[in-house]
Order: sequence, then C-alpha cells, then structure tokens
Amino acid sequence: MSQSPEHRTDGRRPEQLRPFSVTWNPMGFALSSLVVHTGRTAVLCSVCLEGKVPRWRKGEGLGWLSAEYRLLPGSTPQRQSRELMKLSGRTQEIQRLIGRSLRAVIDMERLGERTLLIDCDVIQADAGTRTASITGAWLALDQACRSLVEQGVLEQSPLVDQVAAVSVGLVDGQALLDLDYSEDSRAEVDLNVVQAGDGRLLEIQGTAEGAPFSRSQLNELLDLAEPGLSSLMQAQRQAFTEHSSVT
Amino acid sequence: MSQSPEHRTDGRRPEQLRPFSVTWNPMGFALSSLVVHTGRTAVLCSVCLEGKVPRWRKGEGLGWLSAEYRLLPGSTPQRQSRELMKLSGRTQEIQRLIGRSLRAVIDMERLGERTLLIDCDVIQADAGTRTASITGAWLALDQACRSLVEQGVLEQSPLVDQVAAVSVGLVDGQALLDLDYSEDSRAEVDLNVVQAGDGRLLEIQGTAEGAPFSRSQLNELLDLAEPGLSSLMQAQRQAFTEHSSVT
Amino acid sequence: MSQSPEHRTDGRRPEQLRPFSVTWNPMGFALSSLVVHTGRTAVLCSVCLEGKVPRWRKGEGLGWLSAEYRLLPGSTPQRQSRELMKLSGRTQEIQRLIGRSLRAVIDMERLGERTLLIDCDVIQADAGTRTASITGAWLALDQACRSLVEQGVLEQSPLVDQVAAVSVGLVDGQALLDLDYSEDSRAEVDLNVVQAGDGRLLEIQGTAEGAPFSRSQLNELLDLAEPGLSSLMQAQRQAFTEHSSVT
Amino acid sequence: MSQSPEHRTDGRRPEQLRPFSVTWNPMGFALSSLVVHTGRTAVLCSVCLEGKVPRWRKGEGLGWLSAEYRLLPGSTPQRQSRELMKLSGRTQEIQRLIGRSLRAVIDMERLGERTLLIDCDVIQADAGTRTASITGAWLALDQACRSLVEQGVLEQSPLVDQVAAVSVGLVDGQALLDLDYSEDSRAEVDLNVVQAGDGRLLEIQGTAEGAPFSRSQLNELLDLAEPGLSSLMQAQRQAFTEHSSVT
Amino acid sequence: MSQSPEHRTDGRRPEQLRPFSVTWNPMGFALSSLVVHTGRTAVLCSVCLEGKVPRWRKGEGLGWLSAEYRLLPGSTPQRQSRELMKLSGRTQEIQRLIGRSLRAVIDMERLGERTLLIDCDVIQADAGTRTASITGAWLALDQACRSLVEQGVLEQSPLVDQVAAVSVGLVDGQALLDLDYSEDSRAEVDLNVVQAGDGRLLEIQGTAEGAPFSRSQLNELLDLAEPGLSSLMQAQRQAFTEHSSVT
Amino acid sequence: MSQSPEHRTDGRRPEQLRPFSVTWNPMGFALSSLVVHTGRTAVLCSVCLEGKVPRWRKGEGLGWLSAEYRLLPGSTPQRQSRELMKLSGRTQEIQRLIGRSLRAVIDMERLGERTLLIDCDVIQADAGTRTASITGAWLALDQACRSLVEQGVLEQSPLVDQVAAVSVGLVDGQALLDLDYSEDSRAEVDLNVVQAGDGRLLEIQGTAEGAPFSRSQLNELLDLAEPGLSSLMQAQRQAFTEHSSVT
Repeated sequence: MSQSPEHRTDGRRPEQLRPFSVTWNPMGFALSSLVVHTGRTAVLCSVCLEGKVPRWRKGEGLGWLSAEYRLLPGSTPQRQSRELMKLSGRTQEIQRLIGRSLRAVIDMERLGERTLLIDCDVIQADAGTRTASITGAWLALDQACRSLVEQGVLEQSPLVDQVAAVSVGLVDGQALLDLDYSEDSRAEVDLNVVQAGDGRLLEIQGTAEGAPFSRSQLNELLDLAEPGLSSLMQAQRQAFTEHSSVT
Repeated sequence: MSQSPEHRTDGRRPEQLRPFSVTWNPMGFALSSLVVHTGRTAVLCSVCLEGKVPRWRKGEGLGWLSAEYRLLPGSTPQRQSRELMKLSGRTQEIQRLIGRSLRAVIDMERLGERTLLIDCDVIQADAGTRTASITGAWLALDQACRSLVEQGVLEQSPLVDQVAAVSVGLVDGQALLDLDYSEDSRAEVDLNVVQAGDGRLLEIQGTAEGAPFSRSQLNELLDLAEPGLSSLMQAQRQAFTEHSSVT
Repeated sequence: MSQSPEHRTDGRRPEQLRPFSVTWNPMGFALSSLVVHTGRTAVLCSVCLEGKVPRWRKGEGLGWLSAEYRLLPGSTPQRQSRELMKLSGRTQEIQRLIGRSLRAVIDMERLGERTLLIDCDVIQADAGTRTASITGAWLALDQACRSLVEQGVLEQSPLVDQVAAVSVGLVDGQALLDLDYSEDSRAEVDLNVVQAGDGRLLEIQGTAEGAPFSRSQLNELLDLAEPGLSSLMQAQRQAFTEHSSVT
Repeated sequence: MSQSPEHRTDGRRPEQLRPFSVTWNPMGFALSSLVVHTGRTAVLCSVCLEGKVPRWRKGEGLGWLSAEYRLLPGSTPQRQSRELMKLSGRTQEIQRLIGRSLRAVIDMERLGERTLLIDCDVIQADAGTRTASITGAWLALDQACRSLVEQGVLEQSPLVDQVAAVSVGLVDGQALLDLDYSEDSRAEVDLNVVQAGDGRLLEIQGTAEGAPFSRSQLNELLDLAEPGLSSLMQAQRQAFTEHSSVT
Repeated sequence: MSQSPEHRTDGRRPEQLRPFSVTWNPMGFALSSLVVHTGRTAVLCSVCLEGKVPRWRKGEGLGWLSAEYRLLPGSTPQRQSRELMKLSGRTQEIQRLIGRSLRAVIDMERLGERTLLIDCDVIQADAGTRTASITGAWLALDQACRSLVEQGVLEQSPLVDQVAAVSVGLVDGQALLDLDYSEDSRAEVDLNVVQAGDGRLLEIQGTAEGAPFSRSQLNELLDLAEPGLSSLMQAQRQAFTEHSSVT
Repeated sequence: MSQSPEHRTDGRRPEQLRPFSVTWNPMGFALSSLVVHTGRTAVLCSVCLEGKVPRWRKGEGLGWLSAEYRLLPGSTPQRQSRELMKLSGRTQEIQRLIGRSLRAVIDMERLGERTLLIDCDVIQADAGTRTASITGAWLALDQACRSLVEQGVLEQSPLVDQVAAVSVGLVDGQALLDLDYSEDSRAEVDLNVVQAGDGRLLEIQGTAEGAPFSRSQLNELLDLAEPGLSSLMQAQRQAFTEHSSVT
C-alpha cells in the first residue's frame, strides 16, 4: 500500500508520532504533577495520595488507584460545559480506562491500604486525549512513587512496569499513527492501544466508525502501534532523565 | 497448547458456545421484543420507535438509534440496586457499546428523522450480558424494522447487515469461547468482539485483567471468536425462521 | 341497574376477572421470581433477601420489607422513559402501597433483622399494574419465605396471611371489576382494594376521576370487589399448587 | 359501642372536631394566603397564578391546578430536614392528593390557559396536616378566584364546588374523628376522606396500620366523617364571612 | 448634601428604619420561633437543637451553628419556584452570611457538642430579607438559649453578644437606610452591614450595582448604618421585653 | 503603629504584594487564556464566546458575562474532591463575585447578544484565589475583547475600565496586604476589595473571623488596599505590554 507524507495535516509520515514533551511540576502542592504535550494536545496530570482505600477494599492490606478525567471548558474551540449532576458516558469510559491501565502496573500489596488518585485535566484537546492522559499519568505516577519512597512513606515503589498508550486509525484506507483531530474526525477505524514495558498489551479498544474492518487491517494497525509505543516509552524515560538532571 | 474439555464448568469444549435460544414477544405493546438466552444468561430486549431525532440531529433527514442497558435488581445472586441519580461507568460503557454496534448497520437515511430506542434489561446475569444484549437486540431490531415496513411506516428496512457479539478470554492460560461467570471471574484476559455479517469486525475491546497479553495470544482469541460468531449468526437466522413459521 | 356484557371491551361480564396466570422462576438467581398475568397486564415480580435492616430499624430484632415498582420502557404503546434522578409521584405512591400491603402480613419478629426486597417490573401495562403487582408479589413472597425455611435461614415462615388486590370502577355509571386500559381511561371513579385472607380490608383508595361519588356507589363497588378478591385468592392458591406439583 | 370522652387526649368527644380557625393574608404579595389552624396543627396556604399551563396541556384552552406541600423544618418536635434532590414518597403522595382534590372542583374551561399554584407549608404538625391543607387550600383558592374576578382577569369564578377533608381512625377499637398526633400514632386504621359540597366523596384513602378492618368498621368510620365534614364546611363558610366583614 | 423626605416611597426620612415588630412563637414545636417584620418584609425564624455536631467537628467538645434560608413560593408578587436539586448561588450566599454572623457571637465551648439549627423562611419579601433574617434569627436564638438554660440542657447561655443587620444604599446619589424593594431595585450601591452589640462590625458587603463608589461614599453609608443599627438593637431588646412580660 | 517585616512568612513588608506574573496562552483553542501567578497561588483563566445570551436576557440587544470557578483537585496539599451534583456555597459565592466584578466594566450594548464565559481553574491555592482570579480574568478578558475586535466580530471593545482585586487582613492586630495561606488561616479580619481603574470601589467584602472590627480598623485595611491595587493595575498593564511585544 503506497503511503505519502502529504496525507497528514502536519506533514508527518504515517508512522510518525507527534512531538512529545513534558512540563514538570505546575501544581506545587500535589504529590506530583506535569503537563504532557503530544502535538497540540496538552493534559495536566497530577497525583495525590489518600491514606485509606474505598470501603469495599478495606481490611485486605491492599492499596487502590483511581483516575478522574475532564475536558477543561476552554480546551476545545467550542467551549465544553462542565459536567455537573452526571458525568457523560465518554468521560466515565475514559477515566475507567486510565484507572484500569495504571492499576495493571501497581503492586497493591507494596502500596498498602492507601489510594493513589490520578487527575487528568485536558488543557488543549486535539484528539488523543485519553492516550496522552495515560502516557502522562504514568510519568506523574512514577514521580509520585519515587517521592513516597524518598519521604519514607513507602519502602519500595509499588510501580512495577512502564505504561504508554497511543491511538492508531484508518484514514482514507491508510493506517496512521497518533491521529490529530483533523485525522481522527474522518477516520474509518479508531484503535486505542495501551502497552506495558515489555511490549505486551494491557488494553485494546477498536471501533469501526464508518465500515467494518478486517483482521488484516487490525493487524496493520497493531503493527503501526508497536514501534510508536516503543518510541513513546523512550520519550517517557528521556522526560524523566531531563527532569531529574534539573531537580 | 493442549486443551481438555474438563476445564469448563459446564463440560463445554473451549470453542463451544452456550445453548442459544429466543423467546419471542414478551412485551406485546412494544414494536418488537424478545428474551435472548445464552446458557443461564437472559436479557429482555425491546425496540420502540419515536417519531423524532435528538435535537442536535435535527434537520438532516437522518435517523438515530440509541440503547439503554440495565441489570434488573433480581438478575444476580446478590441483589443489584437500581441506578438512580447517576448511571455507573459500567452501565454507560455497555449501553454506548450496544448503541454503536447497532448504529453501524442502520442506514440512517432510510430511517429518516426517527429514533429507534433499544432497551436491554438483564433478567439473569451469568456473564456475557453485553454480548448477549447485542446479539439479542439485533434480532429484535430486525423484527422491528420488518414491522415498520409491513405497517408502511418505512418503505425499506434500514437494517443493512447482521450483527452478533461474543466474549472470549484466557483462563488459566487457555483460550475459551463465551465465558460464563465462573470462568469470567478468573480470566486473565477478557475480549469482547462484535462482528458484522461478512465476518469483519465492528468492535473489539480487550482488557488484561491479570497480566499483559501478547499479540499471539490476541490472535489466538480472535481465531476462537470467529467461528463462534458464525455459529451465533446462524442461530440468529434460525431463531428468526422458527418465529416466522409460527406467526 | 341493568348490566349487559357488551359494555366490556373484551366481552367480560361486569363482575368477571381477567384471565389470571403465573409463569414461575424467570430469574434463576433471585430468591423467588415469577411473571403474573392478568389479561394483557404482565408484571415481573422478584424477591431478594438482605441480611440487615435499614439504619433506623436496627437493634430491635425486627425485620423489614420494602418494594420497588417500575414500568419497563417497552411496557406501554408509547415508550416510558426510565426514571432517573427522581421518581415520579405515581411510582412512589405505588411502591409505597405495595410495601405497606405486604408488610401488613409479615411477622417482623420471625423474620429477624433481615430485609425482604420486592421488585415489580411491569412488562406489559394494560391497567391494573399496581393491583397485579400486589397479587403477584404476594405469591413470590410466599415462595421466598418457603425457600428460606427450607434453606434453614428461618425456622418458620414470617408470612402470616394471604393478600390480593383488585381495581373496581364506575364506567358510564356501571360498576366494573378489574378494569383494563380501555375501561380505566374513561372511568368516573377508580377504586383499588387490597384484602387479607379473611376478607377484611388492608387498603382502600378511591378517587373521583370525573364527578364525586356517593356512599351507595362506594358500597356497590366494594360489593363487586369482594367476590372478585375471593376468586383471585383461589387463583393464587391454584398457581402455587401447579407450581409445586412441577418442582 | 360505649364511648367515653376520657379516651381523647384533649377531652374531645369521639365525634368532635378540633377547634378550627383561620388567619387571613399573612403573605401580602400572594394572590391569596391564610394560615389554617385545626387544634395544634397549622398550615400556611397560598395561591399564585401563572399565565400559562404545563407544556403537555397547551393549546386546549383549558387551565390547570397543581399543589406543593412541605413540612417546614421547625414544624415538628424533631427538626425536619428540608427535602433537597428528591421529594419523599410521603410528600409526593400528599401534594398529589391536594392537587387532585382541588382540581375536581375547578372548571378548567372558565380558568382558561392559566395555572393556579397552591402551596401548603406546614408550620405546626400535630397530625392531619394533609386534610388541613386541603380544607385550608380550598378557602385560599376561593379567595383567589374571587380576586381574579374582581381584578377582571376572569369573568366568572372557576370554582364550582366546596371541598373539605378530615381524617378518621380506629384507636383502641373506637372510631375517632380528626385525630391528633397522640391518637394518630397508635391508630389501627387511618382513613382520610375528602368530600364535595353536596356530601359526596372525592377521595377516600384507608390504611390498616395494625390489623385488617372490616366493611362494618369502614362504614362506622365513614358515618363519623360525614357530619364532621359538614361542620368543617360550615366553619369554612364562617371563616370566609368573618374575613369579608373585615375587608 | 441636601436630602428631602419625599425621596422615599413610603415617606420615611433617609435615616429612618422601617417599622419593626415581632410575632412570637408561631411554631409551637420548635425550640423557639418568631416572625420578624421590617416594613412589609416578613421572615419566619425558628431554632432547633440537635444533640450532635457535623462529622468534621466531632471530638473537640465544641458546638456548631448552621442556618438555612428560603424564599417561600408566595413571598413575592411573582411566585418563587422552590429550590430542588440545587440551591441558587443567592440562597447559599445568604445562608452562609446568616450562619457566619451568628456563629460570631456563640461560645462554642459553652454549647458543647450540639448544633443550633436556624431556619429563616421568608413570608413576604420587600427587600432586606437577609438583614431581617439576621436580626430576627438573633432574637430567636437568644430565646432558644434561654430555654436551654431553663430546661437545664445548658448551664449558661452560649450567646455572648447581640447581633443586628441592616442594608444601606445609594439611590439617585443619596444615602438611604433600610431600603425597600422600590428603592433597592434602583440603588447604585448596595451595602449590608452586620454589627455586634458594641457597635463594631461583623460583616460588611458592598456592591456597585451601577457605577463604582468612592471611599467617601462608603463612609457616608457606614455613617448612616451605625445609628440605624443602634435603633434596631434597641428594638430587639424591646421586643424581648414585651414578649417576656406576656409569658 | 510599628510594623516589622519579620511578621510575614516570606519576609514581605506589610504593604508589599506577592510577586505577580502571567503565563500567556496555555489553552490554544480558547479565545484567550493565561495563568496568573501571585506568589505561590496560580489560576488558569480562560475566556470563551458564545453567540447567544441566557433565555431571560433575550431580545434586549444586550450581552452577558458569566464566570465559573473551581479548585482543581491537586491545587491544595489535601486533594480537593471535584464538585459533582452540587456546587459548594463557597464556590458559588466566588464565581458570583468574579462575574459581578467583571460585568461592572463591560458595555453590554457594545457586546450585543453574546455571552463572554470566564473560567478560573485554580492550579495552586495559597490563599487569595478569588482575588487572583479577578485580576487574572480581567487580563484575559481584555485580550479576548481585543481579539474579537481584530477578528471583526465586534466593532469596538466592550471593556470600558480596568479591574483588579486584592485581599487585606488583620493578623495579630496588624494590617497586612495580599495574605498567603499561613497568614490568611490566622487572620482576625479578612477583607476582599475589588477596584476599578479610577481607584473607586466595585466590591468590598469584610468578615470578622475572630472578633468584631472597628470602623478605624476597616479604614486602616482600606488604606492598605488602595496602593496595593494601584500596583497590581500597573502589573496588569506591564503583563499586557510584555505579551504584546512578543506576539
């Protein structure tokens, strides 16, 4: 299948990630915080600790992690109303996905009866906010766990693996990595992939937006996601190194 | 990988579906209704028509379809409280999945500015309620569309393809089709697959419950889902034939 | 007052009940469940047990019983929206009536600090859903109490009397028993009567829909309800016998 | 049945009403308002007019009347929390009863596409608040309708009949009229009767609080309510006359 | 600045309060209650006691006081809808102001782990309802504290100072005391002042409704409020004396 | 009154503001956005435009402005739960204050039937978040209005004056400007002042946290606020100049 760079709005090659960068510590009172940027998408991620677990989890000596996700009102060209009274299905789906993805790499015994609370507030939404949230929240979580060990709250970091996430999609029949809004809004298939440090899968969610997709198209998309996620994980490690060399 | 039938609670082979049957028309005042049974899981599916579309959809000449899903209080061994005030994330996720899966096979132009409302009320929950809901709701939807054509409301059925859904999972490292609760509750990986009539995919949602899963395990699960979904689609057609021969 | 059978939509005599039947055990995971049919009205009744009582009831050694009632969306020709956020006054009134009627025949001391939870979900609504709910729920409750004794949870059934309910009304000046929707919607007076096994009254709720009614009209209606309720109680006993002979 | 006055807390005879009085016009900005006192029970009733009807009522040229009922927090010895988020079943039941009872005597055509809004706020609750609300609200409604005719808003009063309500009950086997809290809280049967000006019935709601009641007990209670309601209606007319002679 | 009495709707001088009076004890079951009248504004104030404090306050041996405020539906010419689901910002602001103002004069240690609950229900709203609520609630609170001492619940009244409140405003450039609605609705500046018994300030809230105001205008308004509040406090004491001489 | 710098946590003089700075344009899709920093307090302010006004405002040719305020969960050492279902009184009070303060300087006729929506999301809360929100939101609003004129949406900026806000307080009897949390939490009096460009007042809200305050103390606080607000307004103008020189 011939692919040409001019297909993409911003001149990227089909297998190319958007520029990735991290601004550390915008919320000085949180356990850890950062803004993750993937292209024009930006998400404020923070981690707080609570010294207890939800009621149904009590008495087992195990910790918990939960996540909240919101689009800030000014994050999109058309203002987003804040969700009061009830959360939309989309918001709930995304925060459940973030929570599940990160719980998969937390050793709940090491954490003990404490809860790690992740907040992902989208500042700028140019598609891929759920995957950017996961990728950014993992970095903030890593930072938070290191702090808890430094502060002597925990003996050992409960974080046992790396996590990153990316979207891939079929646009005009072509598989593209890390869609921006102009691509995402006309994708025929949209696939979100969450991966652990060893390249195995934690979550895979694919939806036919236009027409059904074949097994071979699914494989093509997964083949594109794999190296993209490896690059993202490298970018995560680099963001951490740069941060550490400063602080 | 050696697989032996004795692994399954009810004696099924790994690639065997649970018994599938349909009770037609329990709700005489709805446009169409049925109870779908897959093993001990039972879901009451009904379809209603509304002569208008949601506000944001108006004026385009296109129809809409939306779905609601609930566990009835007595559907599980431990009573389910009804969801008042707000829907749980799980409920919202499932009804969004049902709606997306069925919208994918509706020609919204043929439907015109009308809404098809699908209700899936689980009567007995032995795992697989979301996939049973999709498989059953498609049958009810097919019946509803035929009635609308017969009644002269629509000229042509807006239903353009068949839809069925099934769960597959890794239990003790073994890939199993159509998990019941005893299997689902200890699965390491849980994958829901929604398929169109030509065997292509509409939705795929996989979650690592215990440990990450590899691409080859994903393929093994999809290889198991494919023939299962073909059988289910055949069972759908047979259920329809039996019903038609009666009415 | 001359009364002719042709007054009734379905050819019944004024003092004739609609056909009554019971489908047992549609919800295999509930303590007991059934669908009660009175004419075209059908209600799914189930009973669950909870091992505690509401907070305000604690520490007295007494049990509790509460009831929930809903119209399922497809139960009426025009789809019923589910009640979220708040219950309608009608729904609350009905579930309070069901709860009061059944609590009247439960020995709370024998039940101990446990709660019996009754759910009445209307599948098909052709008037008389509140009285059918009471009549059906009593049967399910009887079955549930027997099971609790069999399972050794209770020493003795806490159910001390039989309960059935029926509606009577004045339509075109004529007293009719067990109104269907075509009759109920044009009734001048609507009276619901709940009766205990010995023929005495548990609840009586009469409303002038059109014009006020006299004491003698009230008596005429009650005279009609009495034998109707006796027949219903016989039908309840018969439904139980048929069920027992099967299981 | 022998009855002795010493049975009643306040020395009343079984067939005696509590002292009835009216304070007119506490809310100077409402269309009409009053406080109705029956013994120690006191309810603030007011009527407002809205120049439109509910959406579902539009375009028929007919008016509407609706009622709201609340216990003010300080109305009972134990403070009542205000009902936020959702109304209790009791509150909804009562305001539906008040609304139905008063709608029964309004000529909706004469009212035209306007809504009469009744508010009953209980200031002091010594039982019988729902019947006092109806009796008081009728007086306020009468006053409001006269004002609307005087102001030229309506040509003719839409109020076509008188309405009053009272409770009767069985206490220690004895039928008592107009129960106060000390009686109501230990009544075996509680019956609320709403009556029109000609002595016919608008609403009758009887509940067995302890044991079932017989037809003859029901008749005994209704025999007690009838003269009580006649006296109440006379008291309503007298309250109106006294008010008119002042203003 | 020349000021002429004809500026005011009701003929008052700029520095003149509206007539102030109190009706004692309309709610016989509350710990204390009264209706406070300032001109045509009337507020029903009541005080209840709860034998515990909010959860976050437990275990310190200190009491608490909280206040609720509502406009009753008939209190304004245009009916006020009751606030369900959520309180308006205005309502919350006012009840927080009432609570803060009265907590400032309660010795929480003397009160012990109990909560005083203040309810202010506006019966007639002709502006100044928040200041009338504070002035009236203080009187009711004083009465309640005396009762608690008399009843032996408290050894010593926890009320340590007097509180009164008044509004002042600039209308057509002129400073006026105790605005009624006709004045308040066209005031350029609106200032609410809450004062303790020694003339010092507890709360001051000023808002430019039309144009900004200068420091000298602020001083002019405060100069007007001071003697007004002294008169109000005298009126409070007199209302108490009159009440005591009766009871 | 002798004042020594050592009173303040961070070494400031009593009359000294915290360092003020602005980060422009963090939300690229909003009409305008910025983060305002005053010491360790940081607020993300953004402005969106909606092409209509609230229903009650329609048809007058006038615009509207409304404001929302939230503490982001990670903005405080102890995580803030998001406000769902209902806003706290504090949040409502603050967003009403922000809205009123900014509406006071908008020419609603020039704006036409459009709504300016202000969002203030606190990133870091070290006291003074409401005043920082006002000061920052004014800058964002100025930027937004300039953009609307540049884009040709408006002919002339509707912003007619400058607005800034600051808190002053009495701490240990000493008047301090621009309190941080360590000071605010032990202040006896807390006063928020909102000022227009000509030095006149828009809002003044003073609360006795510990003991009542005198007129002379009030004057001392206002004397401190005035030069502080002049400096803040200069800082606003400088922030604008720096931003303009870049873009």
